[in-house]
Amino acid sequence: MKDKISIVGAGLVGSLLAVILKQKGFTVQVFEKRKDPRKSEIAEGRSINLALSHRGIPPLKLAGVYETIEPYLIPMKGRMMHDEAGGLTFQSYGKEDQFINSVSRAQLNELLIESAEQAGVEVYFDHKCSDVNFDSNTVFFENGTVVNADLIIGTDGAFSAIRKKLALNDRFNFSQHYIEHGYKELAIEPVDGQFRLEPNYLHIWPRGNFMLIALPNNDKTFTCTLFFPFEGSPSFSSLSNKEEVDRFFTKYFADAQELIPNLTEQFFNNPTSSLVTTKCKPWYKGRSILLGDAAHAIVPFYGQGMNSGFEDVRLFVEMAEKMSWDWDEILPEYSTHRKKDADAISELALHNFLEMRDHVAHPDFLRRKKLEAQIQEKFPEDWIPLYSMVTFSDIPYSEALRLGKIQKIVMDEVLVLDESKIDFQQIIERFNALKKAG
Amino acid sequence: MKDKISIVGAGLVGSLLAVILKQKGFTVQVFEKRKDPRKSEIAEGRSINLALSHRGIPPLKLAGVYETIEPYLIPMKGRMMHDEAGGLTFQSYGKEDQFINSVSRAQLNELLIESAEQAGVEVYFDHKCSDVNFDSNTVFFENGTVVNADLIIGTDGAFSAIRKKLALNDRFNFSQHYIEHGYKELAIEPVDGQFRLEPNYLHIWPRGNFMLIALPNNDKTFTCTLFFPFEGSPSFSSLSNKEEVDRFFTKYFADAQELIPNLTEQFFNNPTSSLVTTKCKPWYKGRSILLGDAAHAIVPFYGQGMNSGFEDVRLFVEMAEKMSWDWDEILPEYSTHRKKDADAISELALHNFLEMRDHVAHPDFLRRKKLEAQIQEKFPEDWIPLYSMVTFSDIPYSEALRLGKIQKIVMDEVLVLDESKIDFQQIIERFNALKKAG
Repeated sequence: MKDKISIVGAGLVGSLLAVILKQKGFTVQVFEKRKDPRKSEIAEGRSINLALSHRGIPPLKLAGVYETIEPYLIPMKGRMMHDEAGGLTFQSYGKEDQFINSVSRAQLNELLIESAEQAGVEVYFDHKCSDVNFDSNTVFFENGTVVNADLIIGTDGAFSAIRKKLALNDRFNFSQHYIEHGYKELAIEPVDGQFRLEPNYLHIWPRGNFMLIALPNNDKTFTCTLFFPFEGSPSFSSLSNKEEVDRFFTKYFADAQELIPNLTEQFFNNPTSSLVTTKCKPWYKGRSILLGDAAHAIVPFYGQGMNSGFEDVRLFVEMAEKMSWDWDEILPEYSTHRKKDADAISELALHNFLEMRDHVAHPDFLRRKKLEAQIQEKFPEDWIPLYSMVTFSDIPYSEALRLGKIQKIVMDEVLVLDESKIDFQQIIERFNALKKAG
Repeated sequence: MKDKISIVGAGLVGSLLAVILKQKGFTVQVFEKRKDPRKSEIAEGRSINLALSHRGIPPLKLAGVYETIEPYLIPMKGRMMHDEAGGLTFQSYGKEDQFINSVSRAQLNELLIESAEQAGVEVYFDHKCSDVNFDSNTVFFENGTVVNADLIIGTDGAFSAIRKKLALNDRFNFSQHYIEHGYKELAIEPVDGQFRLEPNYLHIWPRGNFMLIALPNNDKTFTCTLFFPFEGSPSFSSLSNKEEVDRFFTKYFADAQELIPNLTEQFFNNPTSSLVTTKCKPWYKGRSILLGDAAHAIVPFYGQGMNSGFEDVRLFVEMAEKMSWDWDEILPEYSTHRKKDADAISELALHNFLEMRDHVAHPDFLRRKKLEAQIQEKFPEDWIPLYSMVTFSDIPYSEALRLGKIQKIVMDEVLVLDESKIDFQQIIERFNALKKAG
């Protein structure tokens, strides 16, 4: 248990993993290319808040940090949909007691880095990885530092330096795909110290090909995010001056516009960011392995980027413990086992953009949701809606994707029937038969 | 017409393009990272011979080099299939007068470089590209050379340096996917100055999950290529000593084994190479653009890698001429227009591996081929088999792919019928209706 582990990247996944591995008795060093976020303003063009849900919580508990972050979480019980006239419709995410949590990325990251240092992890900032030797297990940094380790873990995000070095090996499969949409964040400030929208919801303005969402923050602000095409009409490139932006918001998001007096300034001052999906294989070579976004960056529309990364950490540590920390066995086994689930959540996340920006506003979607709630109520053990499997369960993503496809087949069959003809016993038998058939 | 054009990569596509652009009146420089192949032995782990077919010929004629290479071409009229007992079956590629041509990559490349120099192109070897500035149109080389140009063209192959620099831009989509199979080349030497196999065929030993092929060379040798999985049983990794290789060839390729007395030495001395498909988008930025493998590397199973690259050259030049050499208009237009065809041949090439290594040996495939030949004979204007559309026509690859899928639908419907029920008029009406429906 005296193995020395070097982790490259002190983001959410890297710093959480460092805490746990240190607690397991390893010597753990973390190298981060940025400055210490506790000492400096960070403006890195990443989302301000995130949705922590079921899968992310056990790993935080495993590291003993959940209790510290819990008071800062803002529960969101469902979607609050804003139509063009300003009318509101509520859609719950799951059962009464099920919710997701808005959390500040910066706050959570600082807490995890703090916890790592307190646990005895050595954390080095201003260390940008420049090379890796996968045969000798050596990491090189731009400042001249050279580190040897028994295990090297790349948790350095979607544009991972470790992955770029892995990609130089023959037969390394890789893809990076940007969607046609980008995003821009806009802040809704509090008035008289109060939230301007109901805080316990994820607010959403679905508008077909684009959407606005808003998540609450601890300081009573909301962070709005506009997901919008880069090109076309309307798009980021079609809104070229303040009048056009104002006219656009008046047309589509009038109620939100009222809450953002400096909207056009924010629109032109804040960056427009792109949205990428990355996939690669294999995730490891020798004694080096990728976890989190470095292995599988996904779009944010299922709120599972951080949660899947934290689940990576839990599964990796649990598997490693079961396999007596024999890294040469663990790395291939973990990668093979987890890859199909990473691919599944990647697909689910892309698809959920369509659901959020478009489907949720359609009557057919609401009918489907209603039917599904009825099936679930009658057969709670057999039928868990796809959103709940992904968000409120530990069911592997690949299995959730598979069952979700079967649910769609069954519901497509039922929704063409006259309501009086719906036979719930028959529905669940059909579902279970298809499920069994694989 | 005094624009200065810098081409990075003096392979088949780059040197052909250089000849044509020089003839159009531009100042053309070509930079190649390798040494001059006319002065040095090259061993670069690429295939020894290629199949030149219809699409590759007009670009060679455009450059005025076709007549010089023509005497060195060896026509291949079809597939000569070898079964495990050594029995032979012939499948023609198309009509009586249609054939593809075995050609030496090295010979063709040297001829094209020679032609470029004779036309007045400056060709610089030992120039490895290290960086590109897409704003100032500057290319940097490892030896310190810095070049400015009005147009920069990257024809530097599947692992293009220019593409790697493009990939640093936001929103650059990219994928590289290796198939599970690799390949190894083995030579069949002549005896008494004679070919050991019938020269005017592409010989093929289809064996389900793997295959051997052989193409004739001008020196009366054949180059065999074993396409074989890297892992599993049997695979490159399962054949670890000479006895195992001998036993494997005796079992599957006994007639070929007899023609290669030093088989096991070749097997262990010759490299095992991987097979990659790359895709990217966009192909251009500012005044820089990718052509050929640099933009779209494909697997070799349709024999279209070089041919599609040469077709790139023809289409690019024709479009540029039509658009009065206005590069700022041409680069986006060409890329948008050609991308769908590159994606289509990429898909077709992957699928044709299945056909070559497996389907061709099955009775159902032969029934299908026979039926299709009958349809084509009756309606030669309406129905051109997919292989012929790809290999013997100028039909855009994307349209060939689309029509091929419709042909498959129609044939699937017909092949379940009793032969007496087959109505050719009905077949062609069904095909034309689906074709029209898009």
